Amino acid sequence: MPVGTLASVKGVPQDTLEELGAQIILGNSYHLYLRPGVETVRRMGGLHGFMSWSRAILTDSGGFQVFSLNELRKVTEEGVTFRSHLDGSAHFFSPESAMEAQIGLGADIIMALDECTEYPADHDRARGSMELTLRWAERSKKYFEEHKNEVPWRVSSQAPTSRAQTAREVGNPASGCVPGESWDLAGKKQVPRFPRNDNEESENEPRTGNRQLATGGCSTQSLFGIVQGGMDRGLRKESAERTIEIGFPGYAIGGLSVGEPRALTREIVESTLEHLPADKPRYLMGVGTPEEIVEYASLGVDMMDCVLPTRAARHGLLFTSEGQVSIKQARYAQDQGPLDPNCACRVCQRYSRAYLRHLYASNEVLAQVLNTIHNLSFYLDTMRRVRHSISLGEVRFSS
Amino acid sequence: MPVGTLASVKGVPQDTLEELGAQIILGNSYHLYLRPGVETVRRMGGLHGFMSWSRAILTDSGGFQVFSLNELRKVTEEGVTFRSHLDGSAHFFSPESAMEAQIGLGADIIMALDECTEYPADHDRARGSMELTLRWAERSKKYFEEHKNEVPWRVSSQAPTSRAQTAREVGNPASGCVPGESWDLAGKKQVPRFPRNDNEESENEPRTGNRQLATGGCSTQSLFGIVQGGMDRGLRKESAERTIEIGFPGYAIGGLSVGEPRALTREIVESTLEHLPADKPRYLMGVGTPEEIVEYASLGVDMMDCVLPTRAARHGLLFTSEGQVSIKQARYAQDQGPLDPNCACRVCQRYSRAYLRHLYASNEVLAQVLNTIHNLSFYLDTMRRVRHSISLGEVRFSS
Repeated sequence: MPVGTLASVKGVPQDTLEELGAQIILGNSYHLYLRPGVETVRRMGGLHGFMSWSRAILTDSGGFQVFSLNELRKVTEEGVTFRSHLDGSAHFFSPESAMEAQIGLGADIIMALDECTEYPADHDRARGSMELTLRWAERSKKYFEEHKNEVPWRVSSQAPTSRAQTAREVGNPASGCVPGESWDLAGKKQVPRFPRNDNEESENEPRTGNRQLATGGCSTQSLFGIVQGGMDRGLRKESAERTIEIGFPGYAIGGLSVGEPRALTREIVESTLEHLPADKPRYLMGVGTPEEIVEYASLGVDMMDCVLPTRAARHGLLFTSEGQVSIKQARYAQDQGPLDPNCACRVCQRYSRAYLRHLYASNEVLAQVLNTIHNLSFYLDTMRRVRHSISLGEVRFSS
Repeated sequence: MPVGTLASVKGVPQDTLEELGAQIILGNSYHLYLRPGVETVRRMGGLHGFMSWSRAILTDSGGFQVFSLNELRKVTEEGVTFRSHLDGSAHFFSPESAMEAQIGLGADIIMALDECTEYPADHDRARGSMELTLRWAERSKKYFEEHKNEVPWRVSSQAPTSRAQTAREVGNPASGCVPGESWDLAGKKQVPRFPRNDNEESENEPRTGNRQLATGGCSTQSLFGIVQGGMDRGLRKESAERTIEIGFPGYAIGGLSVGEPRALTREIVESTLEHLPADKPRYLMGVGTPEEIVEYASLGVDMMDCVLPTRAARHGLLFTSEGQVSIKQARYAQDQGPLDPNCACRVCQRYSRAYLRHLYASNEVLAQVLNTIHNLSFYLDTMRRVRHSISLGEVRFSS
């Protein structure tokens, strides 16, 4: 899932994301809560209407972002108090207010508020943090069940009506069947199958036919639970089992990629996956490199998000079939070849390494635009290969 | 002509420029001379190959940019010495070296080195500056005639060959008939008609058929002369007549938009145009607002360039059919309407003012990308309307 922190995948227009085949993007609740604010997004029909994106969206709970603030936050049983990184103003997220925010933002998949346990953490700290996350998961679910009908795209009077285009893009809110997601429960392995409402497909595929939610309708969001437990396999097992007991249509593995060694990440992912149901989407938060996403998919992970492809692109670090390319290097100054000879993206088809190097070295904005398009294309191609392997019934697959 | 200072119209991919209908873009020799350097561009087959742009390109002489450096330059009969704005290194442009640079960059239209007379300037200063520009025009033409065959796209061995795509994009260098421009001499008013080598047209129109240069071939660049003379109508007349005497396939009016009142600009443009041949392109440098480009076209100007649409876009100032919109204003925070209800561009068709305002207020790169696309669309639409009016035989037309 490409990351679109502030309702924008930095530098890439939405139609380009569609052309790249992005089926779902991620927004960050913490950032959107601060700017432009939940109420503004809600009035625009939610993120789909606000950013004119008809495919699926997932928002995080804001928890991870807030915990990243370190000195600026304080956790209690009730929730987390934090200061804005923008102006230092004080704010408070409880499981209930995090749900309220995410319902207002109106993504298709939203996340329970969790505490991301720091690394390293001793056993008592990891257990205490895990128990807090479980209590918050119950509160998140309770609030969601009581308020899930307040999602902005259920309320037709508040859906965008001033522009025919917007209504067309995000579906007909009056049908009560605007952007949702569907899961292929028939296959051996459940891979998220999101509606793709681009023009090519809309004629072949009835728009509403592909919009049934796993929860049995198409009119509310899906709330996912998050497994914590630090780097302790026993706690992870307990966290998974008790989160499943609460009951969610999908489960995320949180609290990883927080500074631990890569081998430990893999070990915890592998052991945690054993305890998560195979017929529900399993979402590993915050990973990874192209090699890692292939590896984790082979272990059974269905969904991943990471800022790496977009952030690295802005720093001139590009992923190719021949390895990483640091496009700022002088060695590319007169390199007439494409960035990646095996890539069919519009950047590799049109521009030379020399031109991309020039744009980066000259601090041209187009460098960020083109670099990001390529890196996203490479990641999405990687996941397409993974899905193809799965559809062929291959148990293991390589990058 | 959209301005692409460093071989990039800031933030806009080349395929988007094609979709917008840009027929010609402008590059700045001074900036390209410093980065990536003429030799790098030359080895890539010139700007066309370097930036993968098959339509027309014009480069300025570097003179105006150098004169903008103020404290960093010194003018003598021989040329101008200046210091780089990047690292303070010393450089020298003579008419000859400015031609050498522009031949290496390989644009379709290149400009003689001129001295842009400052405003205000007394009569002696304006005359002296004009005389210098005339001497430099002769030297520019002499050097060009002796070296015009060194343009990189004439030399097939140095044309980009490592990538089939590049060769396809910029035409077949071996044919000796790569990007040039043609002029419609049949109409009453000569409007530049550049080849549009996009996919839609390439099948209907033989690529080589539309590539005849006014100079009688398609294998060299066109060097334009520049009229100076300050704000003195007599000097402007003399400058025009003596520049025509030297002989160029097109003529530019320089030295305007340098701080003088708008009414004076118009007066000088109008009086200068009287002395320029109607069967050659007349290029007014460095203007203007949407209203101004319509006004100057109505006076007989064929070509204009300005950073206004792109630079204003980066500052959130947008041109619409309903006037200027400063998208940063809080009044647009919840405005669900399109930026310009009368605009068919991809920005106005897809996004709301509220979203554009959010992107700008959040300092998102996509703000620059989308704002620039709209402003260029508005300018290019304006010029399409102008051309349509001309084709209908209307003597005067309004914006």
